[in-house]
Amino acid sequence: MKVLVLGGDGYLGWPTAMYLSDQGMDVAVCDNFVRRQYDFEIGAESLVPIASLQERIKTWHEVSGKSIKLYVGDLVQADFVYAMMADFRPDAIVHFGEQRSAPYSMIDRGHAVYTQYNNVIGNLNVIYAMADVDPAMHLVKLGSMGEYGTPNIDIEEGFIAIEHKGRRDVLPYPKQPGSFYHLSKVHDSHNIMFACKNFGLRSTDLNQGIVYGTETEQTVRHPRLATRLDYDAVFGTVLNRFCIEAVLGHPLTVYGQGTQIRGILDIRDTVRCIELAVLNPPDRGEYRVFNQFTEEFSVKAMAELVAKTWPGEARVEMVDDPRTESLSHYYQATHTRLLELGLTPHLLSQTLIESLFRVIEENKHRVNWESIQPSVNWRHTKNPASHLNAKLNGL
Amino acid sequence: MKVLVLGGDGYLGWPTAMYLSDQGMDVAVCDNFVRRQYDFEIGAESLVPIASLQERIKTWHEVSGKSIKLYVGDLVQADFVYAMMADFRPDAIVHFGEQRSAPYSMIDRGHAVYTQYNNVIGNLNVIYAMADVDPAMHLVKLGSMGEYGTPNIDIEEGFIAIEHKGRRDVLPYPKQPGSFYHLSKVHDSHNIMFACKNFGLRSTDLNQGIVYGTETEQTVRHPRLATRLDYDAVFGTVLNRFCIEAVLGHPLTVYGQGTQIRGILDIRDTVRCIELAVLNPPDRGEYRVFNQFTEEFSVKAMAELVAKTWPGEARVEMVDDPRTESLSHYYQATHTRLLELGLTPHLLSQTLIESLFRVIEENKHRVNWESIQPSVNWRHTKNPASHLNAKLNGL
Repeated sequence: MKVLVLGGDGYLGWPTAMYLSDQGMDVAVCDNFVRRQYDFEIGAESLVPIASLQERIKTWHEVSGKSIKLYVGDLVQADFVYAMMADFRPDAIVHFGEQRSAPYSMIDRGHAVYTQYNNVIGNLNVIYAMADVDPAMHLVKLGSMGEYGTPNIDIEEGFIAIEHKGRRDVLPYPKQPGSFYHLSKVHDSHNIMFACKNFGLRSTDLNQGIVYGTETEQTVRHPRLATRLDYDAVFGTVLNRFCIEAVLGHPLTVYGQGTQIRGILDIRDTVRCIELAVLNPPDRGEYRVFNQFTEEFSVKAMAELVAKTWPGEARVEMVDDPRTESLSHYYQATHTRLLELGLTPHLLSQTLIESLFRVIEENKHRVNWESIQPSVNWRHTKNPASHLNAKLNGL
Repeated sequence: MKVLVLGGDGYLGWPTAMYLSDQGMDVAVCDNFVRRQYDFEIGAESLVPIASLQERIKTWHEVSGKSIKLYVGDLVQADFVYAMMADFRPDAIVHFGEQRSAPYSMIDRGHAVYTQYNNVIGNLNVIYAMADVDPAMHLVKLGSMGEYGTPNIDIEEGFIAIEHKGRRDVLPYPKQPGSFYHLSKVHDSHNIMFACKNFGLRSTDLNQGIVYGTETEQTVRHPRLATRLDYDAVFGTVLNRFCIEAVLGHPLTVYGQGTQIRGILDIRDTVRCIELAVLNPPDRGEYRVFNQFTEEFSVKAMAELVAKTWPGEARVEMVDDPRTESLSHYYQATHTRLLELGLTPHLLSQTLIESLFRVIEENKHRVNWESIQPSVNWRHTKNPASHLNAKLNGL
């Protein structure tokens, strides 16, 4: 089984590549390193030091004896995508290769346009390269639970049976995404659904919840195999950020009243879900959706759990919500299809958070305090960095 | 009332601009003339000769005494969009300024990417310029009935009440568009819906059916005020194309068995619908959808009606469907909101088609036969012109 991981240098792409390689699959990774560029732009960096992708691949070969092939390039460049696909000829393509931060997409017009251009056009190039090189390839596409928004009915896995005026159909689940990033994923989903029908492609769209944790069986085998751990307000996801705030003695900053409910999962479940999708491809022409998370928590409950688990002082602090999201809402989302394929979830427990606490303790001297403060407000249309830069430069 | 018509040089943009000007509104038009460029690319042109936009505006001033302001530029250039909006400060923006052909978007990868880039990014720039210059502006956005696809339940106007597992919500109507062009409109709709909620904008999304006809009260006032009439397989819409085929003695080419059902409307109803939307803006923060068509016909019924009405010989011929669309399907679409606002439809009748026959007769010496043949196949991923060019060049 040959698997090409797009975005193979990222938080989840790199652990996924090693995990699949460890299962005996023939793995290649593709990246253009723009994720490392975003760090320079916003003045943040991974709490855990990360090696270059070339060093990671070399180290993985040293510790496992297995090879991972590297393609350096940008998915918006069609000639690169076609050449890579024709050269590697994967059975499955795992597509993490998109700008994945909602706050980043909401910085200003330029970042909204960049996010939709980068994600939608890159994904269109992948679709066409599949159709032209080998339409039997399986596209395993990373989506987001945030595509659904917070409807007042149960969220289903991609499709919903609707009875209306005495007739019935099963239709794509209506989406109400809450950022230009989440919108880009909705656009991708519609494009892929059409491509499956039109070109006879096959795809699994994984609507993932919020991932937490930093260690997998593979990343712990050598420090140079570590994956990134983001805690800044732009790329840091909520549970990782709470753990870091606790270790640092910073209040755990909850947006609004913290009544927003979100699906979450352990990083070790992410890599296993990808494997399950790859090992169980859909039929040609089929577009399917799995909701990829294992538990639901309110943001406040996550903060309280972290505060309770951390042995030191930890205070939960409510701050103004920079997002325009529903704070009090119904939330019930189906997530049975990955369980049916054999997923055994790692549920959130003290043990798991404690392993994260340990990694954070080891690296806490690296923290940049300024980057934790929310800098992007959904209601504003201007780049907050333009003010920050002016201040830094004494203008 | 100040109205800015984006795409004001096009088939519907130009008649709309004159119509609104005639109603006493202060009108500006914006265009980058890429529609005229597509003609060069595919080797086709309007059956009716059309003047330049500058000549049109001058002639309109001569016959009506009214002025239309002109902005020449491209919506994907944000600085141009911002400067135009800040200069004209419209109350309403009527957005026709997108690549509007489904076959064009399906030519090959490059045309799919161009269509989504051009339409989605241009529209994002308009959204941000509204938010920054004046969020009270009303965006009247042209969508398509083709965004819905052909579900097995009634199509509603943008939203549908869903009961599911004992709970209830009103959610965006699920979309199943059938081309990368139609997908671009779905992406736009999602982006606009979010922008209304997030930035407090207001918008009317007009999901328009297939427009037929070429004359309005304003276009007939001078030959230099005529709007384009397309009959080629890429930009020609179905009813106009049937009329032209009848006049030319060409078989009326129906795709598949012609059992596809489509909503249609007269060009004179298009301009009136736009006026009704402009005169009755939604509240700030509101995103609403009107289904803009007046009658439903199967494609075969349209062909038969044209054949019966044309006084000469006319034969209906079934050809292989180049599209991947459902040929036999349920179709019932609600379209009451524009009627409630006061629309009095011009229904399809012999008189109306006969006026179109007359215009075609006058211009039939201009027909290019080759451009009528379907050249784009939905299942192919390569540009058919690359073969055609090779043939023309004797390669």
